[in-house]
Amino acid sequence: MVARGRYAKGVAKREEILQVALDVVAEVGYRKASNREIAARVGLTQPGLMHYFGSREELYMEVLRARDERDLGEFMDPDPSFAGFLSIIEHNVSVPGLVRLFVEFSAEATMVGHPAHEYFVERYAWARGVLTGVIDRAQKSGELGATLDPKIAVDIVLAAADGLQVQWLLDPEVDMVERLSRLWDGIRLASRRD
Amino acid sequence: MVARGRYAKGVAKREEILQVALDVVAEVGYRKASNREIAARVGLTQPGLMHYFGSREELYMEVLRARDERDLGEFMDPDPSFAGFLSIIEHNVSVPGLVRLFVEFSAEATMVGHPAHEYFVERYAWARGVLTGVIDRAQKSGELGATLDPKIAVDIVLAAADGLQVQWLLDPEVDMVERLSRLWDGIRLASRRD
Repeated sequence: MVARGRYAKGVAKREEILQVALDVVAEVGYRKASNREIAARVGLTQPGLMHYFGSREELYMEVLRARDERDLGEFMDPDPSFAGFLSIIEHNVSVPGLVRLFVEFSAEATMVGHPAHEYFVERYAWARGVLTGVIDRAQKSGELGATLDPKIAVDIVLAAADGLQVQWLLDPEVDMVERLSRLWDGIRLASRRD
Repeated sequence: MVARGRYAKGVAKREEILQVALDVVAEVGYRKASNREIAARVGLTQPGLMHYFGSREELYMEVLRARDERDLGEFMDPDPSFAGFLSIIEHNVSVPGLVRLFVEFSAEATMVGHPAHEYFVERYAWARGVLTGVIDRAQKSGELGATLDPKIAVDIVLAAADGLQVQWLLDPEVDMVERLSRLWDGIRLASRRD
């Protein structure tokens, strides 16, 4: 029972750290979010903080993993659709700290050898898989024409969604959901014309 | 003559610093590119380096300004076209250090209050202006249908180009030029169907 209580406390502490890390990113940006600040807010020393996650990068990968898992379950389950994808984007508008974390962290991790490089390579492969499922279903239902090359469409939708995040962070008036809906309309129209 | 010689030397030194800063970003990424390393490579102290640019951010804004000016002159002059835009993207493949700098620096500068925030807000307004010109000409020539909303198309092309840079940095097999050509084909087809 004692061990169990200690384990539960450890889990709660991890959750608390993930939340605080996200708060700090939302306030000062990813680059300036320091382990010192996060440790202070959760009442730990820096080595104490690293006991939970091993490294700064591991901590932020964990934040993003938890987000993807939740988004997938909430918006893409059981049938991934473009409407579900748009719901994720719409939800993102309410969590600018997460969007900022993703944009800054992925940018930095493009560097080969970066501790999160492999994580992002795999994360993009995963996102491509999810969107390939969306397009595959839309082609089977006839919403998209059969001549559309899914690989190209997936890369473009993913790229547009990423790029719009930067535009939106710079100018919150940019409506990511509307832009992506219009892109989807265009893909639909073009897919029936080839 | 002495003053003139000193001025010319100052200009040459600035050029040298810009080039070395770019080399260092290409090697270790923007985040880890330190003033110390750059100063050492150009034979200056850190305060000596800052004498030329005032701040780390000013130095990198200058690198990007010089790039945009060159690209615009080389690929978009006198008549901005989508082919010219694709030539810039194709050129980018040969300068990954610049692409990395743009991706990392713009991500970080989305934060309000960041020293380069205003620079990127203005840079996006500028890029939108250039692309609006491209689309306007294509509509006038009949390449694009008249019902296309230029504002939406501009944001999507810009976003796709930005997002593809991240995909390409993570995986150099991603062909940015081909993806953007296909996006343009799709915009063209869709613009004639509304």
